[in-house]
Amino acid sequence: MSKGLPKRSDDYSLWYNELVKRADLAENSAVRGCMVIKPYGYSIWEKMQAELDRMFKETGHSNAYFPLFIPKSFLSKEASHVAGFAKECAVVTHYRLKNAEDGSGIIVDPDAKLEEELIIRPTSETVIWSSYKNWIQSYRDLPLLINQWANVVRWEMRTRLFLRTTEFLWQEGHTAHATSKEAMDETIQMMNIYAQFAEEFMALPVVKGMKTANERFAGADETFCIEAMMQDGKALQAGTSHFLGQNFAKAFEVKFATKEGGLEYVWGTSWGVSTRLMGALIMAHSDDNGLVLPPKLAPFQVVIVPIYRGEAEMEAVSVKAREIMVELKKAGISVKYDDRDTQKPGWKFAEYELKGVPVRIAIGPRDLENDTIEIARRDNLTKEQFELKSLPISEKIASLLDEIQEGIYSKAFNFRSHMTTEVNSWDEFKDVLEGKGGFIFAHWDGTSETEEKIKELTKATIRCIPLFRKEESGSCVYSGKPSEGRVFFAKAY
Amino acid sequence: MSKGLPKRSDDYSLWYNELVKRADLAENSAVRGCMVIKPYGYSIWEKMQAELDRMFKETGHSNAYFPLFIPKSFLSKEASHVAGFAKECAVVTHYRLKNAEDGSGIIVDPDAKLEEELIIRPTSETVIWSSYKNWIQSYRDLPLLINQWANVVRWEMRTRLFLRTTEFLWQEGHTAHATSKEAMDETIQMMNIYAQFAEEFMALPVVKGMKTANERFAGADETFCIEAMMQDGKALQAGTSHFLGQNFAKAFEVKFATKEGGLEYVWGTSWGVSTRLMGALIMAHSDDNGLVLPPKLAPFQVVIVPIYRGEAEMEAVSVKAREIMVELKKAGISVKYDDRDTQKPGWKFAEYELKGVPVRIAIGPRDLENDTIEIARRDNLTKEQFELKSLPISEKIASLLDEIQEGIYSKAFNFRSHMTTEVNSWDEFKDVLEGKGGFIFAHWDGTSETEEKIKELTKATIRCIPLFRKEESGSCVYSGKPSEGRVFFAKAY
Repeated sequence: MSKGLPKRSDDYSLWYNELVKRADLAENSAVRGCMVIKPYGYSIWEKMQAELDRMFKETGHSNAYFPLFIPKSFLSKEASHVAGFAKECAVVTHYRLKNAEDGSGIIVDPDAKLEEELIIRPTSETVIWSSYKNWIQSYRDLPLLINQWANVVRWEMRTRLFLRTTEFLWQEGHTAHATSKEAMDETIQMMNIYAQFAEEFMALPVVKGMKTANERFAGADETFCIEAMMQDGKALQAGTSHFLGQNFAKAFEVKFATKEGGLEYVWGTSWGVSTRLMGALIMAHSDDNGLVLPPKLAPFQVVIVPIYRGEAEMEAVSVKAREIMVELKKAGISVKYDDRDTQKPGWKFAEYELKGVPVRIAIGPRDLENDTIEIARRDNLTKEQFELKSLPISEKIASLLDEIQEGIYSKAFNFRSHMTTEVNSWDEFKDVLEGKGGFIFAHWDGTSETEEKIKELTKATIRCIPLFRKEESGSCVYSGKPSEGRVFFAKAY
Repeated sequence: MSKGLPKRSDDYSLWYNELVKRADLAENSAVRGCMVIKPYGYSIWEKMQAELDRMFKETGHSNAYFPLFIPKSFLSKEASHVAGFAKECAVVTHYRLKNAEDGSGIIVDPDAKLEEELIIRPTSETVIWSSYKNWIQSYRDLPLLINQWANVVRWEMRTRLFLRTTEFLWQEGHTAHATSKEAMDETIQMMNIYAQFAEEFMALPVVKGMKTANERFAGADETFCIEAMMQDGKALQAGTSHFLGQNFAKAFEVKFATKEGGLEYVWGTSWGVSTRLMGALIMAHSDDNGLVLPPKLAPFQVVIVPIYRGEAEMEAVSVKAREIMVELKKAGISVKYDDRDTQKPGWKFAEYELKGVPVRIAIGPRDLENDTIEIARRDNLTKEQFELKSLPISEKIASLLDEIQEGIYSKAFNFRSHMTTEVNSWDEFKDVLEGKGGFIFAHWDGTSETEEKIKELTKATIRCIPLFRKEESGSCVYSGKPSEGRVFFAKAY
């Protein structure tokens, strides 16, 4: 019934790729590293966007749109920023094609060379702060709380659908503030919003924390993140929120007149989540039968499949099915009634299992006689015969959807708990990492040298320094030097 | 009170540019030809998007996302398509920057040259049909009804905010069908949806029609369009819907197995509207005081301005203002209460006039005494003293907003009627065009030669051949040759 999907235990990576393709979420395009997001996948992304957008607006942010192109000189203005992005920039050098004079076809017109090359935005701090310079004069213009939904390009050498693609879709918030404290509060607020979104809508428990200096965003003074645990024991960074200090204000000369009559550089933040969240969603919950979607993000929450032989049965079943559909829709539940006669019920069952539809309702002639329906849950693959008289169907399904949403979260939460190991020696560190995997919660001496050495030896990186960690002195799991507290290590996507 | 906005009658073009900037809709960016859409402008675009997206989904379309990049060889596959777009293509040739060895700064890394250049999509037919080749095998896979919201780039030499920019935002629908008739029905359906959107939401009357061969989309067999009339007597193409025939199916070898067991090329359509609609909206309704927004697209429909001296008055007025705000919001009306103490009421009045807020409510101490408020309409600049006891405020404002929406439409409709002239001689044609301007409804002999000659002599183009034109034989206004019916000529944006 799994339509030949590979098993997670056989080849997790192959399972993921095949699942993304077979569930009609996305596929590779003819352009290296770029994906096509197919309608079913895009509709999940739209639901993510809608919720995030609402959360951003509720916290006072407005959307705007800034250019795709960044002049090379802009990108170069913030030194560590350009150092971080230079190696993965797509560059526009010409603005016209023409017919080759030798008739060999269409070529780039050498006469249409740009004076200054344009970079396709890998992120928009530079082009946005160059606008902010004109928008901000006084403390009255602050805070400036702006977000944009956009595509960005980072020339990745090794790509994977949703997780790492050359072009991806994201939102990037860019805010400007009068004080360091206000900017820091904003940075932390947005990390919290991401965490709330991940847990409440994606049913994905996350660890909140700070990145080490090595893992910081290029141009930030501090990067906060949310980190999730995937089923293969690898961590996935699901969102980041950066405290930019005055770095971009200084690079673009953005100063404001203070209330007291002074002139100061503005404080900044930026924060983003991307279509990478789709990868996290898929990897965190799905199983060998296919996708498992939390009801709050499923393109449709319920599918109704009619069981029948011949037209008379089909008509009788359809009357009931449509009645139920209307009831559910009235209650705000999204439903698809699949009455196609080109496919058998068994085929449809497998199809919707693969596509992760949270609840499947089957209705056949015997159900009509008994006033029942069959209700199947995608998350735990259980079925029940439900008596329609026992409870209004909309109440039944609404509470079932809540139960599924919570069930998926709990399962992921328990898995992550199981996959988080407190470790106190280097041997144990290596054993856990190579055996069970997951998060290793261990002492670290706080130096980049140790962090890099551990990465070199094991491929594990420090995912984050947790926000509210126990004050606990100890000694570094690798160097034995004093440590001020434990951090999360893991291999990561 | 117009904050120094130029007058339409003095310099329409300058008036438009200044209005776009001063009303905080958009501004030019540091990148030639690219604009920054500011939050107030973007929020109007978001409302347009939401309504259009709903209309697309109600007619069975799903959203998806295809790559920004198009390999040069793809663009070249449909001959007339590449001919139409080659001159305005931004081309990516490299994928990396590096530090210059002489220390002069960041340069494009010559070692990171792409084997095949990538074009930034000017439109996505080619990259989408290359996917459709894999998605369509059988008649069961049809129709395929897909839309994408995206940015596109066309390297324009002369740009204007919203109307013609190098990068712009749009939606592009791309559908595939089993028969020519079905594809033609879809093409016309989408033109009708655009017309309905323009009239119902933008309050903008449009003419529906077909383009002449000269003005067709590059790669289409037929282009349908909606054309609107601006206040300076120029026409503006507001949306197009293309019947692609089998052109892209042939270019990309997209065939399907028919019900009858044959193998045939697929029929296609594509259709789009863009941020150009913002330009149309602004130009069609605004006046010398600033923007005039139809209530259905206004970021907020009502602004409440308190009038007071001293804190006690402010508090009393605020209680009433908030009461009204709550009432209005309950009724689904969007309201902003501007209680800033940094600006005077007169400044605020001018500001919201400039920004086109449909209804302004002012409340002062005398209003509290009399249980009244002052209600001002932006569209016709009238004011009234409203007795709060006479009618629930939400009913009053809801019906006022309807009245304003209709009023703006009627005004534009009457203007367009006035600006449409039936013309029967060449002298009259030239007189009307140079004098009053607007649409000239005249006979044309149906040849490209005459069309081009008229354009050369007068800069007027055939905006469209109206869909339901009177069967009326006549003689061409320029050549005197026989004509099968009248067409709309105009100078255009």
